[in-house]
Amino acid sequence: MPKTRSNLIIGQSGGATAVINASLVGAIEAALKDTRFGEIYGMHRGVEGLLKEDLIDLRQQPSDLWPRIRITPSAALGSCRYKLKEDDPERVIALLRKYDIHYLLYIGGNDSADTAHRLAQAALHSGYDFQTISIPKTIDNDLPFTDHSPGYGSAARFIALATMDSSLNTASIPWHYPVKVIETMGRNAGWLAAASALGKRNEDDPPHIILMPEQAFNIDRFLTHVEAVYRSKGYVIVVASEAIYDEQGIPLGSAGQAGKDAFHHPLLSGAAQYLVELVKQHLKLRARFDKPGDLQRMASNSISHTDQHEAYLVGQMALRALLKGESDKMVTLIRHTEPTYHCTTGLAELAKVANIQYLTPAHYLDESKTMVTQAFYDYALPLIGSPLPDHAKLEKTKVLL
Amino acid sequence: MPKTRSNLIIGQSGGATAVINASLVGAIEAALKDTRFGEIYGMHRGVEGLLKEDLIDLRQQPSDLWPRIRITPSAALGSCRYKLKEDDPERVIALLRKYDIHYLLYIGGNDSADTAHRLAQAALHSGYDFQTISIPKTIDNDLPFTDHSPGYGSAARFIALATMDSSLNTASIPWHYPVKVIETMGRNAGWLAAASALGKRNEDDPPHIILMPEQAFNIDRFLTHVEAVYRSKGYVIVVASEAIYDEQGIPLGSAGQAGKDAFHHPLLSGAAQYLVELVKQHLKLRARFDKPGDLQRMASNSISHTDQHEAYLVGQMALRALLKGESDKMVTLIRHTEPTYHCTTGLAELAKVANIQYLTPAHYLDESKTMVTQAFYDYALPLIGSPLPDHAKLEKTKVLL
Repeated sequence: MPKTRSNLIIGQSGGATAVINASLVGAIEAALKDTRFGEIYGMHRGVEGLLKEDLIDLRQQPSDLWPRIRITPSAALGSCRYKLKEDDPERVIALLRKYDIHYLLYIGGNDSADTAHRLAQAALHSGYDFQTISIPKTIDNDLPFTDHSPGYGSAARFIALATMDSSLNTASIPWHYPVKVIETMGRNAGWLAAASALGKRNEDDPPHIILMPEQAFNIDRFLTHVEAVYRSKGYVIVVASEAIYDEQGIPLGSAGQAGKDAFHHPLLSGAAQYLVELVKQHLKLRARFDKPGDLQRMASNSISHTDQHEAYLVGQMALRALLKGESDKMVTLIRHTEPTYHCTTGLAELAKVANIQYLTPAHYLDESKTMVTQAFYDYALPLIGSPLPDHAKLEKTKVLL
Repeated sequence: MPKTRSNLIIGQSGGATAVINASLVGAIEAALKDTRFGEIYGMHRGVEGLLKEDLIDLRQQPSDLWPRIRITPSAALGSCRYKLKEDDPERVIALLRKYDIHYLLYIGGNDSADTAHRLAQAALHSGYDFQTISIPKTIDNDLPFTDHSPGYGSAARFIALATMDSSLNTASIPWHYPVKVIETMGRNAGWLAAASALGKRNEDDPPHIILMPEQAFNIDRFLTHVEAVYRSKGYVIVVASEAIYDEQGIPLGSAGQAGKDAFHHPLLSGAAQYLVELVKQHLKLRARFDKPGDLQRMASNSISHTDQHEAYLVGQMALRALLKGESDKMVTLIRHTEPTYHCTTGLAELAKVANIQYLTPAHYLDESKTMVTQAFYDYALPLIGSPLPDHAKLEKTKVLL
């Protein structure tokens, strides 16, 4: 364990979320209360900032700022997507030595866990007295060993509500654009696309078809499905992850399919546009798409308070883990259901976390592979905070003369 | 004036909004309280439903339903985009006669005003005792004679907040995708694109460039502008209406420009994708876009309470106008600033309303034509309801050893 009154550094990494600052503040507020810390530094834009010695003095912030940062989306320290080069870990250790930093917290996803792990290994190798703990964060929910990842609950809430709200428009005027595709983030894992169903209360409600990266896409099956839904309900809401792969593993609309069809074009902006073109061309139905993009990771008015609370908790517990002498580990969330849903935290070894992606398990999809099961609702509904609205509908009592 | 205890019919038309149901309920609740009305019918999906005699009995709704419908986005009656054919007005009058309907309220935009006007003319022509009042509704804010249109305030709030939130992500990790384009609705009027600036508190804040249909687009000027912002701020947020036109009036990315450039392709999904390709190709900067699509007209958690209140008010006042013997008119909003912002209502003749589009006036743009003026803030800020959040920022106090 490092000497007392050592300096601490904290960084944020990867795509930001609506609650990543809650984790930052959870850690900082705990550190500010503990006399064992000397200086508290922030990396300006992650480990890339550390390598440039671009550090922010977190003891010099106005005291009333932290509660405000806690509820502000995005990474207040700035973020990066930087993969450490071979000699970077040694350079980082030399800089930590220079600034007398013996504690490091890194908030991020898989790549960030890998970064923290490599720094822990480098410190061990050079005999530098150093502890690091990784704080989980990703809207993709693909980190292993944790029940779920902070950031997912808020993005899931956004997608669930966006699907409910935007679909109301299609349902009100189905002849105008009977098919709508809503594109969610997720290049490998379908957790966010799955979340689009969280406001679905009966079989007629949207979404009608969910497409995820984990499930091989087949054009004929898709078109048959869209047509069947259109015939029975008059309109079709498809929710698709941004990357969907065919049976050969080639992403839809990628350059790999150029020339095959007019719509297999590298300029396509993602799976949604590809699907829209497919429906227009083959089914002759008007179709369009919503692509909320970065908004789904950032929306300040769709934050799940459960998610925000848990993000703060993992930050706080990461700091406590440092003080208990832990290192080279990631904080995890452990779910409890008695008496009601709540989470405690645990620790997982970074060596095991770094390169595993937690994809949606098979039992969260029904046999169609395009709709979620009750097990998924049981898993995801507690994460999105307060109940979704129950949009009112008129009784369609016909007038008969 | 029609005999007492005549039947009333109400319809919703055009693209729905987050508050169009507030107008419906404003009219219905006023009608339910007045003994002069007999049956109260709803058109299922606008005048197209009326032509099919697809009517809903609005007296048969549970009494606790209306307050819930009032706050639910989208058109509870269903909507249509149907332009009356030449002999449709006469057919409608025959149906009104059949159902003993002498009052008609129609909630919609320019096209719906045209529909109501033609019905009023047809009734006059056939000597049928009939009154109609149109209730304004459009997120595009392009109706004339009214200070603004119900529906705009909520969509404007959504776009302002989406721009603030989504931009936070770009700002936190500018090297990743330094240029982001956010695409708003608006094929002819730039009101919604302009609203993206409502959360901008200083020159550095996003958005940095606003592109509207009313301002001719020039590639070189745009690229020079993007590059200048990139050099000074490190990232660039562009907000573009879905339809932007070049100096010849040709929409960006349309088939009209095919073959000119690799990205002039009819498959482009709108102005945003075109602009992204332009930036990538010419400036070699990574760029991507958010396209909230229908969500911007429907988001239940971005409703402006001012907008919702005014939508209810115009519905209520339309009903009162009928009772005062008015016909062939649209309810308008009249702004007052003393003692604080509020609106009363007036009436405008449908003959004058129907085919005029209210575009953004020149004095709402500064000389760059890509940023709004203080006059626009003064106009639009009261419409979006409660103040936008003031996202907290860290003091970037550098650590210097």
